[in-house]
Amino acid sequence: MEKHSFISSIDGLLASSDSLTDRGLAYGHGLFETMRLHLGQLPLSSWHLQRLMRDAAVLGIPVHLSTVEQCINDFQQHLRQQNIDHGVIKLIVTAGTGGRGYKNPATIKARIICVYSELPQFDQQGIHLWHCDYRLPSNPVLSGIKHLNRLDQVMARNEWTDDFYADGLMFDQNNHLVETTSANIFLHSPDQGWITPDLQSAGVSGVMRAVLLDELFPRLDIAVSTVDINAEHLADCDHIFTCNSVRGITPVLGFIQSHNLVTLTIGSEIKMLQSSLADNYPCFK
Amino acid sequence: MEKHSFISSIDGLLASSDSLTDRGLAYGHGLFETMRLHLGQLPLSSWHLQRLMRDAAVLGIPVHLSTVEQCINDFQQHLRQQNIDHGVIKLIVTAGTGGRGYKNPATIKARIICVYSELPQFDQQGIHLWHCDYRLPSNPVLSGIKHLNRLDQVMARNEWTDDFYADGLMFDQNNHLVETTSANIFLHSPDQGWITPDLQSAGVSGVMRAVLLDELFPRLDIAVSTVDINAEHLADCDHIFTCNSVRGITPVLGFIQSHNLVTLTIGSEIKMLQSSLADNYPCFK
Repeated sequence: MEKHSFISSIDGLLASSDSLTDRGLAYGHGLFETMRLHLGQLPLSSWHLQRLMRDAAVLGIPVHLSTVEQCINDFQQHLRQQNIDHGVIKLIVTAGTGGRGYKNPATIKARIICVYSELPQFDQQGIHLWHCDYRLPSNPVLSGIKHLNRLDQVMARNEWTDDFYADGLMFDQNNHLVETTSANIFLHSPDQGWITPDLQSAGVSGVMRAVLLDELFPRLDIAVSTVDINAEHLADCDHIFTCNSVRGITPVLGFIQSHNLVTLTIGSEIKMLQSSLADNYPCFK
Repeated sequence: MEKHSFISSIDGLLASSDSLTDRGLAYGHGLFETMRLHLGQLPLSSWHLQRLMRDAAVLGIPVHLSTVEQCINDFQQHLRQQNIDHGVIKLIVTAGTGGRGYKNPATIKARIICVYSELPQFDQQGIHLWHCDYRLPSNPVLSGIKHLNRLDQVMARNEWTDDFYADGLMFDQNNHLVETTSANIFLHSPDQGWITPDLQSAGVSGVMRAVLLDELFPRLDIAVSTVDINAEHLADCDHIFTCNSVRGITPVLGFIQSHNLVTLTIGSEIKMLQSSLADNYPCFK
């Protein structure tokens, strides 16, 4: 039996919330999913929950799919009662309270948090990308996982303030392109066709990336491969898009390279992919 | 003016706590200090707060020293009223709520959390160290900072369950020794004298490590240097200790190398350092 005799304060006021000693806050020991709510439904929830369950096992967080689903269902019901049927539900699953320092408690009781927010404004027509100086560290064990340790993205995203750039290209320490701060990325060049970064040592393995690789590209019979992407690939490409589960597929109209803005056209295949996505998941219309 | 219209639930129950949307939980965008409370005082607080203020700037968290000190003082006063004068105060400073995704809000309002817990049990006589397989990623920007992204330590600490090993050696991807899961480390070999890992690309720059390097080693006129430490250094050493601001200086009686337990003696210089530490900071007697 572990003892939990904590006394705590928050901004100077005494507080007794268990969440102040949660391993999610203490260590980022947890995961999150950002799910599009559309007409009261979560159209990509099966993809999100599949990833969540897989990655929870890597972080040693035992959680039943049915428990998570129940929490989400209850939360959706509450939103319905408030006549809310569009927006974003962020699901956070942490390793809960307890343990002796970094050591897990004998029994982890996962904590499940749902946060609703309105759909953020974003530009579906096309965006421009900053070039981030911050380099993603190589971490083969945690690569791909959407865990709560996101200082890399925070550091990179706050390199620029100009709203002209909606997102930023992120590279690893070998100067390979990995992702943007909040999306995965696909590049097209006349020679290579469509490519997307290999995420073996860094990056988040996004749900929309999986939808594209597993469903959309095959359905349209467009070839795509996962490779290491270096500066030459980037220089050679004629079309780029980013993707995530909130914004869907976003064409890139330009990006910074060597302090210059390189401009791109959208191209017909990006439009075909967007159209195919919208057919299957109308929230991305 | 940023809008914060959140609805949230925790473990299925509706909740309206701001802390569920705190950037500390969301991204690990924050810092922490684990401070020894002794006779109602925090003997190492100036070291802790100096580090905290320096690292808050790196993470873009604007916070006034006087604000943090006020929170701690208020918290200590509350503890005194409860006749609590020994234990550990964990101070967490996060980037607070807000921002659009990873992007910081226009004005960050830091959140300051204090958590008291009893002094954990530990063995001052000497400990044995596990050899962790998990490798620390290289991150020159965040190295040294005691930030809230601590999945590395969680993954490493949960590799073993045998209480015989109080802590574990952690290496980087070049197999250089960096630290243990919860302490810094100093090694002695007859050839090299005292050495401690360079923390340029990984590791936490601990307060007790700073006390040792800046105060104790010079005062005792014992030479010490910060270097890259590889397997040979480890094989050659005759004395090791770990250190942190809760446990002070802890001799290492043995460690795992190539699946074998290598045993060590404590040696007179470790005892001198412990004694010097206790003279200056009686909590470590």
